[in-house]
Amino acid sequence: MASVPAIGNAALPDIQAEAPAIELALQEAGITGLRYPITVHLRDGSQHHTVASVSWAASVASDVRGVHMSRFVELLHARRSRISVETMPALLEETRERLGATGALATFAFPLFLERTAPVTEEAAFVAYDCVLEGQLSLDATSGALTTLVPIKSLCPCSREISDYGAHNQRGNVEMRVTFDLNHGEGLDFTDLIAAAEEAGSARIYSLLKRADERYVTMQAYDNPAFVEDIVRSVAASLQPDSRIAHGRVRVVNEESIHSHNAYASVAW
Amino acid sequence: MASVPAIGNAALPDIQAEAPAIELALQEAGITGLRYPITVHLRDGSQHHTVASVSWAASVASDVRGVHMSRFVELLHARRSRISVETMPALLEETRERLGATGALATFAFPLFLERTAPVTEEAAFVAYDCVLEGQLSLDATSGALTTLVPIKSLCPCSREISDYGAHNQRGNVEMRVTFDLNHGEGLDFTDLIAAAEEAGSARIYSLLKRADERYVTMQAYDNPAFVEDIVRSVAASLQPDSRIAHGRVRVVNEESIHSHNAYASVAW
Amino acid sequence: MASVPAIGNAALPDIQAEAPAIELALQEAGITGLRYPITVHLRDGSQHHTVASVSWAASVASDVRGVHMSRFVELLHARRSRISVETMPALLEETRERLGATGALATFAFPLFLERTAPVTEEAAFVAYDCVLEGQLSLDATSGALTTLVPIKSLCPCSREISDYGAHNQRGNVEMRVTFDLNHGEGLDFTDLIAAAEEAGSARIYSLLKRADERYVTMQAYDNPAFVEDIVRSVAASLQPDSRIAHGRVRVVNEESIHSHNAYASVAW
Amino acid sequence: MASVPAIGNAALPDIQAEAPAIELALQEAGITGLRYPITVHLRDGSQHHTVASVSWAASVASDVRGVHMSRFVELLHARRSRISVETMPALLEETRERLGATGALATFAFPLFLERTAPVTEEAAFVAYDCVLEGQLSLDATSGALTTLVPIKSLCPCSREISDYGAHNQRGNVEMRVTFDLNHGEGLDFTDLIAAAEEAGSARIYSLLKRADERYVTMQAYDNPAFVEDIVRSVAASLQPDSRIAHGRVRVVNEESIHSHNAYASVAW
Repeated sequence: MASVPAIGNAALPDIQAEAPAIELALQEAGITGLRYPITVHLRDGSQHHTVASVSWAASVASDVRGVHMSRFVELLHARRSRISVETMPALLEETRERLGATGALATFAFPLFLERTAPVTEEAAFVAYDCVLEGQLSLDATSGALTTLVPIKSLCPCSREISDYGAHNQRGNVEMRVTFDLNHGEGLDFTDLIAAAEEAGSARIYSLLKRADERYVTMQAYDNPAFVEDIVRSVAASLQPDSRIAHGRVRVVNEESIHSHNAYASVAW
Repeated sequence: MASVPAIGNAALPDIQAEAPAIELALQEAGITGLRYPITVHLRDGSQHHTVASVSWAASVASDVRGVHMSRFVELLHARRSRISVETMPALLEETRERLGATGALATFAFPLFLERTAPVTEEAAFVAYDCVLEGQLSLDATSGALTTLVPIKSLCPCSREISDYGAHNQRGNVEMRVTFDLNHGEGLDFTDLIAAAEEAGSARIYSLLKRADERYVTMQAYDNPAFVEDIVRSVAASLQPDSRIAHGRVRVVNEESIHSHNAYASVAW
Repeated sequence: MASVPAIGNAALPDIQAEAPAIELALQEAGITGLRYPITVHLRDGSQHHTVASVSWAASVASDVRGVHMSRFVELLHARRSRISVETMPALLEETRERLGATGALATFAFPLFLERTAPVTEEAAFVAYDCVLEGQLSLDATSGALTTLVPIKSLCPCSREISDYGAHNQRGNVEMRVTFDLNHGEGLDFTDLIAAAEEAGSARIYSLLKRADERYVTMQAYDNPAFVEDIVRSVAASLQPDSRIAHGRVRVVNEESIHSHNAYASVAW
Repeated sequence: MASVPAIGNAALPDIQAEAPAIELALQEAGITGLRYPITVHLRDGSQHHTVASVSWAASVASDVRGVHMSRFVELLHARRSRISVETMPALLEETRERLGATGALATFAFPLFLERTAPVTEEAAFVAYDCVLEGQLSLDATSGALTTLVPIKSLCPCSREISDYGAHNQRGNVEMRVTFDLNHGEGLDFTDLIAAAEEAGSARIYSLLKRADERYVTMQAYDNPAFVEDIVRSVAASLQPDSRIAHGRVRVVNEESIHSHNAYASVAW
C-alpha cells in the first residue's frame, strides 16, 4: 500500500473540542462493541481469563462538540488485567478525569466459566455463565449493576400432572440484574446471583454428565416441576432480603420443548 | 409415530390456577420470541406484510400460580392482520379480559419496508427500518412506545478536517424510542421518527443507487460531516418539541470504518 | 442537508468495466445481506408473504474488474412477488444477461409460515420453518438447492431407560439440504422436506397447544424416544430414495435440556 | 431441591451401544455449540487465552446406535490448555480411540487477539481476528483447515473517480479458508492468512488511533481504492502459490456505507 507522510498530533486541530451547533448536554458518548481479552477478578480472589464486549462512555457538556474516543481504548488496554466490582470506582474516576467529564459509565459483558462437578460421578467441567458488570459515576452517585444469565433445566408441572407418564422439560435461563451503591456493595458478586438461580430450577445444568449423572438429573427434574412463574418467585424471594441490592429484576425464559417460542416471567423491585 | 388416546381439556386439572408456593405478584408472564406473519397498518392507511418477533404477557396476582400461555397465541392468530398503534388499546384490553389480569403488555418487533427513490435517477427500491411497537395497560395507564432503527451514512468531521483529502465514513444507525399515552397519541407513527433521523446523518442510505446517485451521495456526505454526538443532538432537537412524546431516547451508533468497534452517543428526556 | 449538482450516468466513467490489476476469474461477485419483502410461491399454488435475506451474484471474467451491483437490486425489485423453484431458471438467465456473465447464483433465506392444527383440539396457528432457496447457473448446468430447518421435539432414549421415571427432552432442529437439476426438479418443494422431518422426531412442535394437546404431545414424545442419530437416519432413509435429489445432507441438532451445549449428528450422500 | 438415590454407571444399560433401527453409517455425531475457555498456541510459541465455541464429533458405524457424547467434553477439558495445529493430530487420534470410531473431527472457533500498533503514534492495542481451527481424521487422510476473518477498510474506486471530492468507504471483512494435510502443514498458521489480508485492503483497521493516526489511515485509504473484487484477487494471488494449501477460498464482504446491504466477491481453488 502507498504510504502517507506523517504529521504529529499536536499540529492537528481538535475538532471534538469545538462548540456544537446545537447546545444540548448528552448523558453518554463513547465506544461500544469492542471485543477485548480481560481478566475478571471475583471477591474470592479467583481470576478468570475471558473475552468481553466492552462499552465505555462519558457525558458531554452542552458546549462541547464531542468526546475523544481513543482515550477509552487507552484506559481499557491499561486496565484490562484487573476488571472487578472493586476496581470499578477507580476506573470510572479515571475516565472522568481523562475525558474532562462529569459522568462516566463502563460495561463489560463476558462469559464467566466456573467449574462444576457432576452430581454422582463428580467429574469436573466448566459451565459458562453470561455476566455483565456495569458501573456509572454521576455528580451525586456511584452505582453498579451485576447481570447474570444462569442456564437451568425446567420441567412443566402442568404437563407432569395431566399426563399418564413423562413431562415436557427444557433449557431455561434465569436472568438477574441487581443495582447497588458501588461504594457499599461489600461482598456482592456474580456467584451470589448464580447460587440463587441454581437452587430455583427443576435441576441444574452441567457440561459433563455420565450415565449415572444423567439418571440423577432426569429424576431430580421430575421430582421438582416448576413453571417460569415459580422459578421467578423463588429467585426473587431469595434475593429480595439482601439489603445491599438497591433495585433487582429477575426474568426467567424457558425454551419450551413443545413450542418454537419461549415462555417467560419477570418481576422487578 | 405411536398415537396417544385423547382426553378433552375439561377433564384435565388446571395447574396454573393453583395457589403458588410463594405469594408474590409478578409484573409479566407470557410468551416471547414467537415469529409470526403480521400486517402492520400505518396512520396513512398503508398496510405492510412483514414478519414479527412477538412478546405478549399479562400480570400475575400474588395468589395465582401461572398464566395460560396458549391464550396469547390465540389472540395473536386472531388479530395478526391488523397490528397498529390504533388497535393496540383494544388488543391489550382483550388480553386483560382473557387472562383475568390487571395488567397486559404486547411487543411486536419487525422490519418495516418503505420504498425510497434514488436522489438523481429516482429508481425505486425498499429500505428496511427495524421497528418495535409496544403497548402496556396497567391499572392507571395505557402507554405505548415506538422504537425505530434508521440506517444512515455518517462522515467524520475530524477525519475530514485533519486530512489533506478524503474522510472516513460508514454506516450508522439512529435508534429512537418514544413513549406516549396510547389514548392520546394522535398521528404519532414510525414515519415521524424515520423522517427525523434521515435528515440528521451525513447522507441517507438507499438499497438501489446508480452511478449518478452514488456520486451525489458521496459528495453530499462530504458536504455534511457529522459526529455521533452531532447526529444525536440533531434528532433530539427535532423530536423534543413534540408534546405527544412523554419520554424520548435517541441513540446513534456509528460502525466506524477505521475500527472494528463502534462509536455511539445517546440522550434521554 | 446541503445539496449536490447532479450529473447523469452517461457522463460518468465506468470503473467496473476496466481491466483488473490481477487477471483472475472470480466465481462470485454480488450483494449479500439484503433484507427484502418477497412472496414465495409453492408447488401447490399457495403464496406466502415473507421477509428474505437475499444474496445475488454473477461470475467475473479474468479481464473485467468488477460487477455492477445495482443491477441485482433492480432484478430483485422487479421479481420479488414471484419467488419459487419454477421461476429460478428464468431469474438466473436474466441475471446472466444483465450482468454479461457466464455464471449466476441467487439465494433467498426466509421463514415460511405454515398453518398447523393442534393434535386434539385442532386449534390452528402458524409454525415458522426457516428455508433457503438457491439457484446456480454455470456454463454446463442449472442446479438448485432447498434447505429447510424443521423444529421438532426429541426425548432421550437413554435417559428414559436408565431413569425410574421421566426422561429429558428438548427442542431439536432437523436441517435438510438437497440439490437437484433445476430443469428436472418436478414437484420437489420445501413441504416434502418438512414432512420427512416431522415424522422423525419424538413429537411435532406447535405454536398453539391447549391442555388436552399438551398431554398428547407429552405422552407421544415419551412413547417415541429418539437420539439425534436415530432422527438423522430416519430422515435420510425417507429422502434417499427420491431420485430427483442429486445430493442430500441431513443434520439434526438437539438443544439438550441437561446441558447448555447441543448434540448433533449428520449424514451426507 | 429433592434428592435422588444414586446408582453407579456400571449398573445402568448402555443404550447407545444397541443396534439402530435403520442400518446407516453416519459421518458425524457429537457435540456442538459448547463454549469453553481454551489456550491457543501459535507456531511462534505465543499462547492466547480465549473463549471458543467447540464442535467435536466421531463417525458412527451402521450397526451402532449412537456415540457417547460425554467423552468429547472429557477430552476437551483435558486438552483445553494446548489447542494448536500441532496438537490436532493427537487430539483426533485420541478421539477415535475413545469413541471406537473410524473417523473424528473437531472444530474450535474463537477470537484471536493480536497486538497492533498505530501507524504514526505507535500506541498499542488488541485487534480481534475471528479464527476457526478444524481437523478431520478419516480412514485414509488427516486434514486440517484454518479460517480467519480479517477486518479491513475499503474505499470505493468508482465513488472516488466519479465524485469531485470524497469517496465512500467502509468496514470490510476478508474471510480466508485453507485446507491442508495436517501431517505436512509445516509453519502454516493464522498469522500467514492475516498478513495476506491486511496488505490487500485500502487500509488496515486498528482498535486505537490518535488524531495523527486517523489522518494517516484516512489518506492511505484514499490513496488505495479497492473493490471487493480487487481485494479478493489480491489475497488469492498471495495465497495461491503456497504449496502447503490443498484448497483455498477467499471471500470479501464490504459493509457498504451507502447501503444497508453488503457487497461481496469470492474465489475458490
